[in-house]
Amino acid sequence: MLPRSFLKLISALQRLPSIGEKSAQRLAYFLVQEEEDIAKSLANAIKEAKEKIKMCKICCAYTEEEVCKLCSDPLRNKSLLCVVEKPSDIEVIEQMGEYKGLYHVLHGLWSPLKGIHIEDLTITKLVERVEKEEVKEILLALSFTTEGEATSSYIMNLFQGKAEVEISRLAQGVPQGGQLEYIDSLTLKQAFIRRRRI
Amino acid sequence: MLPRSFLKLISALQRLPSIGEKSAQRLAYFLVQEEEDIAKSLANAIKEAKEKIKMCKICCAYTEEEVCKLCSDPLRNKSLLCVVEKPSDIEVIEQMGEYKGLYHVLHGLWSPLKGIHIEDLTITKLVERVEKEEVKEILLALSFTTEGEATSSYIMNLFQGKAEVEISRLAQGVPQGGQLEYIDSLTLKQAFIRRRRI
Repeated sequence: MLPRSFLKLISALQRLPSIGEKSAQRLAYFLVQEEEDIAKSLANAIKEAKEKIKMCKICCAYTEEEVCKLCSDPLRNKSLLCVVEKPSDIEVIEQMGEYKGLYHVLHGLWSPLKGIHIEDLTITKLVERVEKEEVKEILLALSFTTEGEATSSYIMNLFQGKAEVEISRLAQGVPQGGQLEYIDSLTLKQAFIRRRRI
Repeated sequence: MLPRSFLKLISALQRLPSIGEKSAQRLAYFLVQEEEDIAKSLANAIKEAKEKIKMCKICCAYTEEEVCKLCSDPLRNKSLLCVVEKPSDIEVIEQMGEYKGLYHVLHGLWSPLKGIHIEDLTITKLVERVEKEEVKEILLALSFTTEGEATSSYIMNLFQGKAEVEISRLAQGVPQGGQLEYIDSLTLKQAFIRRRRI
């Protein structure tokens, strides 16, 4: 009994990740009921983002220009590349304010089970970049999950034996505020092995 | 460092109910990354729904016409009105297939704490409808929550003393498949008070 355009909106919302039937219904109801501008601004924001956003030609981050702001910033250290899974990871690292190198966005992690293969990632571009530019260190800042580990290993193997580039990974250990009783044993093992003298 | 149009999309998504910052980021990322058609069809579905959907002049359900399909169906029993909170409740009741009367959608429940007042509901319209049409029974099918109870009481008081219309409510009790140990005591109390002889 719901009108066709309402059902269409529900099914369009259901195609979003982690939005089930009930959530889609609730969202559709909200969009139809609320003031004009919330729904309109969402529809326009989707269209605008889809039209304007492209990948940076160099690092594959999202940008509205050909080359992103970071890649065109002369103050960044071009010899250090931080490899991340997705564009939003760059935000997280930039907010920390410690890192002054450049980035390379893979747009995914190697996961044959989820249908994501090496060719789907931007690894060829990473190799080209390392060959062309004066990169001295590649810092792999990928998640410490099965997929993250597999992708890190793959990249490490690619560059192994090439003396001109160093590969590094993020440190593992107990997080700030972490209580020992809640830390999993793999993390704890890493924290023991890599303990620091003080 | 994320482009402006991406940030705009994130903030538009964040205005949706139960979408926090992280979910909005994930959704935005999904929309930008996926094939053209998912994002486009969502943007179009929102616009189309917003343009086409209006409230039925009679029962306030959603419709693309002036009067909804149910209100213009000559086979429905016009003397019985089922009062519901939102248009999707009609779907739930229609799926059951037992009810042959008409509906009245309140578009909310009375909740001063959430800023929803009696004037925001379609109660004036309900009163007009009952005065004009040959309504014999109003069945209040609202949630058994504080807001639902308050709204039901308000409507009951409105029509009390008007001999020509009967007010009824949904039965309360143990749900199908309900195990006694998991039933809350208020429900159990209702189930005891309203026990049926068999």
